Amino acid sequence: MFERLFVPDAFRDAVAEPVWLDAMLDAERALANAGSLVGVVPPADAAAIAEQCDPSLYDADVLWTEGRAAGNPVEPLVRSLRERVGGDAAPYVHLGATSQDVLDTAAMLVSRSTAGLLGGELDDLAAACAALAQEHRSTPISARTLLQRAVPSTFGAKAAGWLVAVVDAHAQLAALHYPAQLGGAAGTLAALGPRGVEMLAAYAAELELEEPVLPWHADRGPVAAIAAALGRVAAVSAKIGVDVVLLAQTEVGEVSPREGGRSTAMPHKRNPVDAVLARACARIVHANVGVLTAGEHEHERAAGAWHAEWPALSTALAYAGGSAAAARACVQDLAVHPERMRANLAADEPDVGSAEAFVDRALARYESSRE
Amino acid sequence: MFERLFVPDAFRDAVAEPVWLDAMLDAERALANAGSLVGVVPPADAAAIAEQCDPSLYDADVLWTEGRAAGNPVEPLVRSLRERVGGDAAPYVHLGATSQDVLDTAAMLVSRSTAGLLGGELDDLAAACAALAQEHRSTPISARTLLQRAVPSTFGAKAAGWLVAVVDAHAQLAALHYPAQLGGAAGTLAALGPRGVEMLAAYAAELELEEPVLPWHADRGPVAAIAAALGRVAAVSAKIGVDVVLLAQTEVGEVSPREGGRSTAMPHKRNPVDAVLARACARIVHANVGVLTAGEHEHERAAGAWHAEWPALSTALAYAGGSAAAARACVQDLAVHPERMRANLAADEPDVGSAEAFVDRALARYESSRE
Amino acid sequence: MFERLFVPDAFRDAVAEPVWLDAMLDAERALANAGSLVGVVPPADAAAIAEQCDPSLYDADVLWTEGRAAGNPVEPLVRSLRERVGGDAAPYVHLGATSQDVLDTAAMLVSRSTAGLLGGELDDLAAACAALAQEHRSTPISARTLLQRAVPSTFGAKAAGWLVAVVDAHAQLAALHYPAQLGGAAGTLAALGPRGVEMLAAYAAELELEEPVLPWHADRGPVAAIAAALGRVAAVSAKIGVDVVLLAQTEVGEVSPREGGRSTAMPHKRNPVDAVLARACARIVHANVGVLTAGEHEHERAAGAWHAEWPALSTALAYAGGSAAAARACVQDLAVHPERMRANLAADEPDVGSAEAFVDRALARYESSRE
Amino acid sequence: MFERLFVPDAFRDAVAEPVWLDAMLDAERALANAGSLVGVVPPADAAAIAEQCDPSLYDADVLWTEGRAAGNPVEPLVRSLRERVGGDAAPYVHLGATSQDVLDTAAMLVSRSTAGLLGGELDDLAAACAALAQEHRSTPISARTLLQRAVPSTFGAKAAGWLVAVVDAHAQLAALHYPAQLGGAAGTLAALGPRGVEMLAAYAAELELEEPVLPWHADRGPVAAIAAALGRVAAVSAKIGVDVVLLAQTEVGEVSPREGGRSTAMPHKRNPVDAVLARACARIVHANVGVLTAGEHEHERAAGAWHAEWPALSTALAYAGGSAAAARACVQDLAVHPERMRANLAADEPDVGSAEAFVDRALARYESSRE
Repeated sequence: MFERLFVPDAFRDAVAEPVWLDAMLDAERALANAGSLVGVVPPADAAAIAEQCDPSLYDADVLWTEGRAAGNPVEPLVRSLRERVGGDAAPYVHLGATSQDVLDTAAMLVSRSTAGLLGGELDDLAAACAALAQEHRSTPISARTLLQRAVPSTFGAKAAGWLVAVVDAHAQLAALHYPAQLGGAAGTLAALGPRGVEMLAAYAAELELEEPVLPWHADRGPVAAIAAALGRVAAVSAKIGVDVVLLAQTEVGEVSPREGGRSTAMPHKRNPVDAVLARACARIVHANVGVLTAGEHEHERAAGAWHAEWPALSTALAYAGGSAAAARACVQDLAVHPERMRANLAADEPDVGSAEAFVDRALARYESSRE
Repeated sequence: MFERLFVPDAFRDAVAEPVWLDAMLDAERALANAGSLVGVVPPADAAAIAEQCDPSLYDADVLWTEGRAAGNPVEPLVRSLRERVGGDAAPYVHLGATSQDVLDTAAMLVSRSTAGLLGGELDDLAAACAALAQEHRSTPISARTLLQRAVPSTFGAKAAGWLVAVVDAHAQLAALHYPAQLGGAAGTLAALGPRGVEMLAAYAAELELEEPVLPWHADRGPVAAIAAALGRVAAVSAKIGVDVVLLAQTEVGEVSPREGGRSTAMPHKRNPVDAVLARACARIVHANVGVLTAGEHEHERAAGAWHAEWPALSTALAYAGGSAAAARACVQDLAVHPERMRANLAADEPDVGSAEAFVDRALARYESSRE
Repeated sequence: MFERLFVPDAFRDAVAEPVWLDAMLDAERALANAGSLVGVVPPADAAAIAEQCDPSLYDADVLWTEGRAAGNPVEPLVRSLRERVGGDAAPYVHLGATSQDVLDTAAMLVSRSTAGLLGGELDDLAAACAALAQEHRSTPISARTLLQRAVPSTFGAKAAGWLVAVVDAHAQLAALHYPAQLGGAAGTLAALGPRGVEMLAAYAAELELEEPVLPWHADRGPVAAIAAALGRVAAVSAKIGVDVVLLAQTEVGEVSPREGGRSTAMPHKRNPVDAVLARACARIVHANVGVLTAGEHEHERAAGAWHAEWPALSTALAYAGGSAAAARACVQDLAVHPERMRANLAADEPDVGSAEAFVDRALARYESSRE
Repeated sequence: MFERLFVPDAFRDAVAEPVWLDAMLDAERALANAGSLVGVVPPADAAAIAEQCDPSLYDADVLWTEGRAAGNPVEPLVRSLRERVGGDAAPYVHLGATSQDVLDTAAMLVSRSTAGLLGGELDDLAAACAALAQEHRSTPISARTLLQRAVPSTFGAKAAGWLVAVVDAHAQLAALHYPAQLGGAAGTLAALGPRGVEMLAAYAAELELEEPVLPWHADRGPVAAIAAALGRVAAVSAKIGVDVVLLAQTEVGEVSPREGGRSTAMPHKRNPVDAVLARACARIVHANVGVLTAGEHEHERAAGAWHAEWPALSTALAYAGGSAAAARACVQDLAVHPERMRANLAADEPDVGSAEAFVDRALARYESSRE
């Protein structure tokens, strides 16, 4: 729903149903392999299952549509997978697991890979901010508080503020934990007998996910942490967006956005489209963050709050990508007009105080973040 | 992003990009026709434009992708439309309008038609609630406050409560206003010279939309009203959902959901999937309602808050449909267990007070709502 | 918590605990009087109860603190009232009612009176906008889209946009329904025997509140409607706020805020404090609107979602007052600089299109709204 | 506004205006002392200022009311402080600082001390959960998914789930950073000449706050992190609340809340008041978290988004306290009914799988978190 306009292809693809399907199949394969390692699934059966965990064999559209009846897409997938595997191996499909194990694990895999993409955008965005900070370390500009002209600063200091915010948001994203989910029907792994805990460890290791202390079916800490990190990425992107929109105002004119931003009514206009998109995407992210952090998950599996996470998480990931990509494009392509900054200052010898020292501190922080 | 699982096809289709495209072309056609009526577009040119306002000539995917550069899908559409029209008529394409005129008008058309669909769901949901209220007018059940057993009521009274809520939500939806949008580059219709106001009236009439007092580019009252109505539909659907989830608890067992709701771990379970989906959809609706009601729209066109409305409105409409459809299915297929209700009461001669009188009042309200 | 800074005294007072207490006592008195009229309470006992429904006899702080144990302040109030009444009349205190009847009724009374105050602010705000629209009907100004200078308009047309938004928000507020709440222990009015429905009518009439079709203990339509109206007031106030903040920018300089807005660091600054406060208050309102519209109310009384309404409604009412009052002060005290507007236009003969016609339409709408 | 009912006195006091005033005076004192250390304020003048930084000399009500004109309470405080100091020392009051420096620093101090209180509640809550987990390590109970009876688990495993969530939320809270704020008029510390950066370090050290890389006037990372942590505390408390509400249902009856929870209509009821309050408080927290995480802060000081933080942060802190305290009381006073849990199971020899192993893991995690 309008994603094509807001979200770059890479991010749309990263959270699309087929990618969720891949991740769900990764979970099923890991389950079989872990079962084989732990000794609850015969190796040959595990191999037979793994062979059928091939995304090209399934149609996400069909599974999602069928999933409406069961309330999730795992149920039709498991039926289909079991049918394909057939024979003696069939009972070992999805052994000991429940739909939520597979979907939550998939959510972690999808989040981790999308966070990787997002990290790439933030790297580029940080680099672009750092370049501006360095180049304009001493370029005088009027600081503005409550949108009123205040004392002088440097444009580099403004870019340094963006830079530190981006670096911090990136650090928060990079520090996320992605625990595997495996609890079985109701969090006890009962179907695995005494091997439950061992199996949890093996399954997490197969997927290179963190091993949780407990199944977290109804404790959504991991999801809330991802949501908070995405919210920060969006907020930082929107902050850059609002500053650029304001600096690009005709009457201020201290920066110009890239070419583009055509108007149907006024062809001469040069709208700050990337800055605008960064702000718009951030609004969508923040709305979905609320869904991901404020749910009450009843007993051992929530009757609704869990389900709402799937579209909310997909949307938050995608639009966080949209906001970061737009902010990145915005900063990369920004034309800076020092002479206009100077003219707006109306001070012959602007005292920029510690602005330059702060630029240096920001750049040092940036450098150390890359080590 | 997961819509296929939550949103019935009819609602997904109703807000899909091609439908937005249709609506945008309706706006362009209405603009040409109104121009012809008012005398600012030669009739032959208007006809030439109208002929090209055929959705089959355009590809929404392409327009939406190209729209990223302009920050909206109208700009590439107008370019393409103008090119197709060609010749002397080309300058009359989009005459006097701006992108927001077309997109906001399309938003009203898409909302109106989706609200129509939603009204159908609510009709059926109300009918199902009314049938339950009537049938179980005197079926004793324990009322429950703070989830503790309270004094007796009747199941009909509970269904009557749902019914009145649905009827009220439907009335709110049906009372919505859908104003046309036409303000030109910045709300003054300057390109239309002295015919601006006349044109606004003709354009609204062509589309059978309301004529606004002023262009509402940056006063989002119409959008906020739609959002509030969708939020009510979602809340009412979720209320039914939570009640059914609670009544269907194993220990309560006073209703059973339809067949389905299979579990991958426990094949014997009969999960209240529709009730769960109604609640999940409502969470998504409410998140997007916030985007649609709390935006600050700067000056004559917002730099971000407007853009965020497109996905938020599409999502809110679609998931409101999802929540209403799920609640409708849930109530239609509900198996009611009066003997269990009775057993849970532990009172031989339950005094249900005015419960039956309230059922009658609710049914009367329902009947009068249908006149 | 900081209300003193954001919310004028009149609005803080209007939602303070003592006012809730007054309203709760109004409900108890109405209950006794209605009982007397309907014949379930002896007139002398009703009079004895009414006599003790005197707010000066109770201490809101004490009741609210004691209310923590019961989960609401009605329980300690009823205990105290019953004790004061004593004798034969004591059993008639709170007859047939439950805590939620009294609190919901109080919520309607508090909302109605605060909406009255809010209406006064909106009247003044509309008058101030209308005065600007009239005075500056033809004052040329640059319209701005995406914060870029667009074609010319008039400052009157901008004020007319504010005006219509305010008038519409006021109309929405004025159209609110305030139903009485009376359902007894669980919505059946069982304790009143066959007189339940009659009693509901008499009780509503005593309070000059609307008689609902059913008790609405768990159907929060009336609360959601109030919330939506408050959200609109806030949005309209914030829209004025953001426009003034932007017009008052040093580089734009087309309006100046009132004296005040002192800075501790830069005594020469003249910050647009009222515009800023209008925006800040609106954010608080919108956050609380979400609480009031998205709750799931279980069965016949919600276990949490209902309770959260009390602070959320009080806060939303108070800060809606704060936002409207700030917007009103902002517009009333606005200094307009036509020469600067002209200079920013850079057009010798600005074509303002239908801007003036739109001003006339807005003023006509305003006039008709006052009839 | 209703806080007295939801928020324990300790938390109400912790965020009350007088505490903010104390913290603001701490900031002013630290500024003077740091200035003395760095050499920009004569030691005697610093001492004279510090002497007047005595909260008993000021009236928060007056300052907050006067603050309405300036848009913040620091401006009247600084005027008053400067007047009291008088003489040669007066110009050194607030040297180099701006209102936001003082308010943001105060926000960090208030947050840190309230987080300390909150940590105490979480300690007690964790201990109560751990005790339940241990005692009921092997007490069979039916797990419930989508509120349907699923396979058996142990009540200890359920309590262990709460425990790990509480421990994690506590860890998130304890890991928060509280940076000092000092940027001067617009983030350059210009009024301090070359000593700006040195001064920032000294000021932070005086307050035992972290030294930030840059002033964070318009990068609200620290506030967003606090908000996310409070949101987690609320979510965890609400999770416990919803589980207890559900387990305490009459038909389930597996736990009973403490005495209390009286009903005005049904004196025999025993409502789960603490669980209800935990859920209600959480809703208020989550609404305010949105205000604190989704603001766009323009340029070097936001015109509204910053101001909205003060009530939102105060409210979020207070109600997080309310939710945690209610959850704590709820768990501490919980009566557990193993026989009823057993009866609801309908299995003679329940296989609880790894439930006990998970209890042990949770307890180990708890123990290690206390080291």
